[in-house]
Amino acid sequence: MSYKHKDLLGTRELSRDEILFFLDSAKEFKNLNNQSIKKSDNLRGKTVINAFFENSTRTRISFETAAKRLGADAINFSAAQSSTKKGETLIDTIRNMEAMKTDIFVVRHECSGSAEFIAKNTDASIVNGGDGLNEHPTQALLDLFTIRENKGKFEGLNVAIIGDIEHSRVARSNIWAMHKLGINVRLFAPPMMMPHRVEVFECEVAKTMEEALDGVDVIMMLRIQLERQGGAVAFPSGREYSKFFGLNKNRVKLANPNPLIFHPGPINRGVEINSDVADGEHSFVLNQVENGVAVRMAVLDILNKNRG
Amino acid sequence: MSYKHKDLLGTRELSRDEILFFLDSAKEFKNLNNQSIKKSDNLRGKTVINAFFENSTRTRISFETAAKRLGADAINFSAAQSSTKKGETLIDTIRNMEAMKTDIFVVRHECSGSAEFIAKNTDASIVNGGDGLNEHPTQALLDLFTIRENKGKFEGLNVAIIGDIEHSRVARSNIWAMHKLGINVRLFAPPMMMPHRVEVFECEVAKTMEEALDGVDVIMMLRIQLERQGGAVAFPSGREYSKFFGLNKNRVKLANPNPLIFHPGPINRGVEINSDVADGEHSFVLNQVENGVAVRMAVLDILNKNRG
Amino acid sequence: MSYKHKDLLGTRELSRDEILFFLDSAKEFKNLNNQSIKKSDNLRGKTVINAFFENSTRTRISFETAAKRLGADAINFSAAQSSTKKGETLIDTIRNMEAMKTDIFVVRHECSGSAEFIAKNTDASIVNGGDGLNEHPTQALLDLFTIRENKGKFEGLNVAIIGDIEHSRVARSNIWAMHKLGINVRLFAPPMMMPHRVEVFECEVAKTMEEALDGVDVIMMLRIQLERQGGAVAFPSGREYSKFFGLNKNRVKLANPNPLIFHPGPINRGVEINSDVADGEHSFVLNQVENGVAVRMAVLDILNKNRG
Repeated sequence: MSYKHKDLLGTRELSRDEILFFLDSAKEFKNLNNQSIKKSDNLRGKTVINAFFENSTRTRISFETAAKRLGADAINFSAAQSSTKKGETLIDTIRNMEAMKTDIFVVRHECSGSAEFIAKNTDASIVNGGDGLNEHPTQALLDLFTIRENKGKFEGLNVAIIGDIEHSRVARSNIWAMHKLGINVRLFAPPMMMPHRVEVFECEVAKTMEEALDGVDVIMMLRIQLERQGGAVAFPSGREYSKFFGLNKNRVKLANPNPLIFHPGPINRGVEINSDVADGEHSFVLNQVENGVAVRMAVLDILNKNRG
Repeated sequence: MSYKHKDLLGTRELSRDEILFFLDSAKEFKNLNNQSIKKSDNLRGKTVINAFFENSTRTRISFETAAKRLGADAINFSAAQSSTKKGETLIDTIRNMEAMKTDIFVVRHECSGSAEFIAKNTDASIVNGGDGLNEHPTQALLDLFTIRENKGKFEGLNVAIIGDIEHSRVARSNIWAMHKLGINVRLFAPPMMMPHRVEVFECEVAKTMEEALDGVDVIMMLRIQLERQGGAVAFPSGREYSKFFGLNKNRVKLANPNPLIFHPGPINRGVEINSDVADGEHSFVLNQVENGVAVRMAVLDILNKNRG
Repeated sequence: MSYKHKDLLGTRELSRDEILFFLDSAKEFKNLNNQSIKKSDNLRGKTVINAFFENSTRTRISFETAAKRLGADAINFSAAQSSTKKGETLIDTIRNMEAMKTDIFVVRHECSGSAEFIAKNTDASIVNGGDGLNEHPTQALLDLFTIRENKGKFEGLNVAIIGDIEHSRVARSNIWAMHKLGINVRLFAPPMMMPHRVEVFECEVAKTMEEALDGVDVIMMLRIQLERQGGAVAFPSGREYSKFFGLNKNRVKLANPNPLIFHPGPINRGVEINSDVADGEHSFVLNQVENGVAVRMAVLDILNKNRG
């Protein structure tokens, strides 16, 4: 097993073996992160720039931590202070930083397709840290890592993805990857948050929360991304949302025993998930975060090795 | 002497011996900072996050410098870009970063008690970098370090703390610590800036600037924290303040010979302190800043060692 | 050849030999940057603060990359979050950070002369990263580096500097340096962007774009610095500017064969330079950026060595 590409743009292009290759590598880095001294020199003398054209403290810190633990020179760029405000094009901005001999860019951008667009226009390696409504591949990899760690397999598992699927790159990256691993994916969303052409995802579509949760092994609750919904409001209030689409203790009982409950964070408590569930025994939200650093270390390390 | 706790939240809980233990350790790090190569690897492979929910460039840079000189992976988090704006709770924000295997958080927050609240909800170590009106323990330790360095003792010294005591966590942390070391503390403030129940501090309270300064060894001028006073203005103008509560050359003469003049910075020149005093021979403002890095290195190092 | 000063404030004070000394040193660091592992420990245990009182992502990242590749503890300070907003003076802000045993400050500030003012008031070394309309010496050094690398000489070359000369510290730093190296400099600008007393620069002044470009070896296009022009607009529109003062393929033909086309970035495409030229074979814009890191590493390394 191996991964031979310059970039990691999405899970849609990944083969089953490539996914497993990333997960196996992440396991080694998780072990490192559990050591007293969490440090490798695999990326010593390499420059990693977090190019965040859209803000995300959590993802930025996860990638920055990953890069620093690998010994890289990690540098943060955020669009708020950037030359794009001075009229520079996106590609000029990236090419300038590439000319400084940057090895890897972690790119987050509000436009779908931007990571691929940048990747085609630079010799540096690109990790897609989330591009619009398209993909967020390291999030899917960390979800899969957490599933394998706790269920020991992928084949035949049932996963429910619930919430704002239309606006979720997390959902998309997970769907593409899970199909390749033999996981059955079921979707449930408020009507305004269900993709118009949901059939392209080739998933079951549930009609009620009860139907969505029946017999699943993993419950993936999505964040209500108010910031990505334009002006229109898709539901009357958080309380209404919680009533029809939120996860609570009773609903968890509909799933298979010992379900894994996921949320990409940050959680709106009492909206997507009630606190008793978020803090309960089946919540794997913090495991996701922990595994995220390991997965990102693996991705940075593998892409760096591919640079020769 | 030793310090056995996970966190440093305030000086109120510290024993005399614990305070001296921090100061002794800081002395070693001050020596290191005077070397040509200011670098240790005591925190190599450790992750330190500056979690600043309230802005402070100066304190952040001091802690960041301290962490980096100790070889830690130092990461900055500021609330301005944070998930707390997306509706996440404070504890969820911290626990997420803890899940990334963060060893130590330096926390600054506008709410009194927030550092303790966070400390109780995480296994990571917490250094209180200033919480509301409550405590700012590393500031007190650096003040004490500077006193011992220049006066050679604590017992029997007289210290005047002058200015906005009501809104000053610096004053509180110093008062608790100084009492334990046998220092006599005298307070003087404009009426609107004197704590309502000043008796809890068990300090002398002066009625005039002259009475405050009479025979003191250390003059600690506080910053006028306009940003912490709500809408009300406690005095008519900077000129008025200076006239009744500011430090100038003539007033310095009321103190004992060779007084140490402190200010936690940033100084409003001509308000709290006139420039001839701020730049004069008795000003130890920059010594405070220098010693601050050494003290913070000691604190990070000691807490890290306690993590085993 | 050597450079014996504490600071690098401008090219105006530099001798020919000092300029060549910086360029020779930069060549070694360019070689390092082309290695697989781009890392030196020349500045290990040193603290470098990027003190940016005026925002500049590009220059900050270039200096931060340079400092980190040299092994320094690199710390970013930006005025947006700084104590200067709390009423602190510029010198107090710098002296505070100096007291933390900072070795080198890279200073960017909107006021002309600020770098020198700071340098005189601190024992730390100052690199001027751009001060108002005055100087930006590392930009001139990287331009000269790129010229020598591609033309093999300075003596007798003809350079046209075109655009907003009045508001350009890049132009000033280049003019002073180029004169010392025997380069002939020709200026061309819209009337409102030509310095009133242009004669102090002792350059040829062209009357038309054609006259400016005739027989030159290097075409240095300046950025339209709308942010530095106050309220008045010096030309009707980008299209107008492009027509009379912009660079396009036909105009490039007026220059000598194989001209070097420079721009300090970020480029306003279609205004100062058309895209076919910006992306064409004669564009050395990205070479400038690449060489910038090497030049800045040389400057930091040389100043650090001077600190003994």
